[in-house]
Amino acid sequence: MSTVMRVGIAGLGTVGASVIRLLRRQAEALTARTGRQIEVVAVSARDRGLDRRIDLEGLEWFSDPIALAESANIDLFVELIGGDDGPARASVEAALKRGKGVVTANKALLAKHGMALAALAEANKAPLAFEASVAGGIPIVKTLREGLAGNRIERVYGILNGTCNYILSNMEQEGLSFDECLKEAQRLGYAEADPTFDIGGFDTAHKLSILTSLAFGTQVDAEAIHVEGIQSITLADLKSAEELGYRIKLLGVAQRTVGGIEQRVHPTMVPLSSAIAQVMGVTNAVTVDADAVKELTLVGPGAGGEATASAVVADIADVAKGIRSTPFGLPVTTLTKPGRPEIAEHEGGYYVRLSVQDRPGAAAAIATRLAERQISLESIMQKAAGSARSTGKPGNPVPVVLITYATTEALIREALDAAVGDGYIAGTPQVIRIERE
Amino acid sequence: MSTVMRVGIAGLGTVGASVIRLLRRQAEALTARTGRQIEVVAVSARDRGLDRRIDLEGLEWFSDPIALAESANIDLFVELIGGDDGPARASVEAALKRGKGVVTANKALLAKHGMALAALAEANKAPLAFEASVAGGIPIVKTLREGLAGNRIERVYGILNGTCNYILSNMEQEGLSFDECLKEAQRLGYAEADPTFDIGGFDTAHKLSILTSLAFGTQVDAEAIHVEGIQSITLADLKSAEELGYRIKLLGVAQRTVGGIEQRVHPTMVPLSSAIAQVMGVTNAVTVDADAVKELTLVGPGAGGEATASAVVADIADVAKGIRSTPFGLPVTTLTKPGRPEIAEHEGGYYVRLSVQDRPGAAAAIATRLAERQISLESIMQKAAGSARSTGKPGNPVPVVLITYATTEALIREALDAAVGDGYIAGTPQVIRIERE
Repeated sequence: MSTVMRVGIAGLGTVGASVIRLLRRQAEALTARTGRQIEVVAVSARDRGLDRRIDLEGLEWFSDPIALAESANIDLFVELIGGDDGPARASVEAALKRGKGVVTANKALLAKHGMALAALAEANKAPLAFEASVAGGIPIVKTLREGLAGNRIERVYGILNGTCNYILSNMEQEGLSFDECLKEAQRLGYAEADPTFDIGGFDTAHKLSILTSLAFGTQVDAEAIHVEGIQSITLADLKSAEELGYRIKLLGVAQRTVGGIEQRVHPTMVPLSSAIAQVMGVTNAVTVDADAVKELTLVGPGAGGEATASAVVADIADVAKGIRSTPFGLPVTTLTKPGRPEIAEHEGGYYVRLSVQDRPGAAAAIATRLAERQISLESIMQKAAGSARSTGKPGNPVPVVLITYATTEALIREALDAAVGDGYIAGTPQVIRIERE
Repeated sequence: MSTVMRVGIAGLGTVGASVIRLLRRQAEALTARTGRQIEVVAVSARDRGLDRRIDLEGLEWFSDPIALAESANIDLFVELIGGDDGPARASVEAALKRGKGVVTANKALLAKHGMALAALAEANKAPLAFEASVAGGIPIVKTLREGLAGNRIERVYGILNGTCNYILSNMEQEGLSFDECLKEAQRLGYAEADPTFDIGGFDTAHKLSILTSLAFGTQVDAEAIHVEGIQSITLADLKSAEELGYRIKLLGVAQRTVGGIEQRVHPTMVPLSSAIAQVMGVTNAVTVDADAVKELTLVGPGAGGEATASAVVADIADVAKGIRSTPFGLPVTTLTKPGRPEIAEHEGGYYVRLSVQDRPGAAAAIATRLAERQISLESIMQKAAGSARSTGKPGNPVPVVLITYATTEALIREALDAAVGDGYIAGTPQVIRIERE
């Protein structure tokens, strides 16, 4: 092992520039920690002329990231290009094929090609590290892969998208609508011009697919994830949740069930007293339930140049020190392909918000539809005159909020369909799953 | 490297028995993760006859842990004896001298002899791992040593003693006195018959000394820690804290200051909205403030056989995989010996609860003593008739609670001494430091 580890970085956006700054700022400490000098010797990006407020003097410039990945002048390739195919995938493959280590923050790439890339890394005895791909600065990949090695994990769940958590927090705290908060998030740079990827839950799903594999020793299977976004959440839901002792968060959840591993992303009611409910703004959090450690929660920044760079640099230091793990903790050939339970099989409590026609027999009819399917109610709340959704005049729809005890998704959907069929319910019921600690 | 890693365990209390159970339960996964079979082949404990509800059949029995540590039949020595000298120290030294890896949960040993043991480990190229010594199942040692390698850490603080947090939580939630909660904690097995070590803050100090070294690259220096316990905390303090938007926790805090590294353990007011304030019961939590990651908080079980065993097994897996870190992250010879600021130099806000003589001029005199030292007040609360501490009759002492803005320990103490000297204050003022996020 040479004393100097020569690093090539492809992608010089906020994270790439922060990685270079961090490696320079901490150079002495990193050498002492790892026993090697870590030096950025080459970079690649699209626009050479851009002012990135970092000194690139003396660094070899590649306009083609694949050429950088293949360069004999680097020992480690850092991929910060992004995208689930194209140059990101091609350059990572090129580096691994030459036995060079790869550090990446690219969750989309891992969600789609994680298994093939892990196989390539293992075949070439090259490290492939991706701490920064999930939950930014939170060391959850290392925790699952190494810190909880003695545990059988039952469930992993978390707030994995800062944009969604910012919007939900802001709606609740400022009493603003979803659209208003989305615009504010875009103004602050927390949300993209096309926000679908974040608010639709797809970014969370990518990250969840990686956590699931690490937690359960399974093949990455992003397509098995049931995904719902936060677009349908209203202020009325947030207020009702609080009155009932809950808060709404967009969670990614993976858990063992009799049918395999259930993976889902959706707005979720969490108890106000839970650690995860306290996580506001762009902060992320991940909770792991496991047999030995019981419950472990990590809370920290999910995005941002420096926080993400913190994770990238930790991976670089691990590679420099010679820490070798297979990318997903277990050899890729031993990762299992578990059952993919349908969301209809999901078991849990439910929050249901209905617009009920205010006429005799309505409540009884709905209660009957639930009772027929053995669904018990933890609480029921009816808003009368003066509430946002009610005119107070009899005959108009009134909002009713129900919290059920544990049942299955199939049964609650059936019951609500039947109740809608009875003609007492106006519009479509809002249904939000409850996640308990 | 042989395929089988032969483990010897000294100390078969709750943690020792749990480690054996966990290694057996997870045997297959651990072999897949580490590439080696991990096998407990020998044990040592005082009483061979005790029923520990684990099968020790076929394991070599040593009545002397040093003989176990020196045995040619083991590759790794796990020390779970406890105590800062005696057989724990002697056996760890014996193993390291023979180049055998050591995994220990012994914070007292590390707080006292950590530097000498690290030097011995490094000289003999033997791993020395101690994740379980701080905050039980929370992987904070790995996080500081590896996960935050790219950061300059400014402060690390946490709830590191479950007994104290249980007592404070229970006092607040049940409205009970310190003595009542201590008895309850003893009944539940959360507190020892002689609880001084926990409630006096000494256990927290041992753990803090280890975190400080890992966070700041400094020599372990437990003697530099200013230690206060929770014995003086009353229900009145907990109630006043809540009314003012705070909660009282026993924290261990280490932070960079101009004078070096300030290390202190004491009851602390934390904002009710902070992550650490939400941590109730025997749960532990550690927060790290650093330049790149900003703020990272880990919350989990701080004690208990299985949770502690989770950390021990993670260390064993790291050794099996060949993960090599110097014990404190940096070579022991490069660990610095920073300045040890006196507690008088501490800067921060203060909570002060006084019994004030209810006669003209009292408030003015106290306010003058504070103003003379440029101490500003964030809030002031005076309880009149009907409060627990007041008879409501003029002339009797009334409780007054002050929250100051940032000042220094020396100034607030001076001001209070002067105010006591003025004759308006009955008894000794209660002073609690405030820790902000």
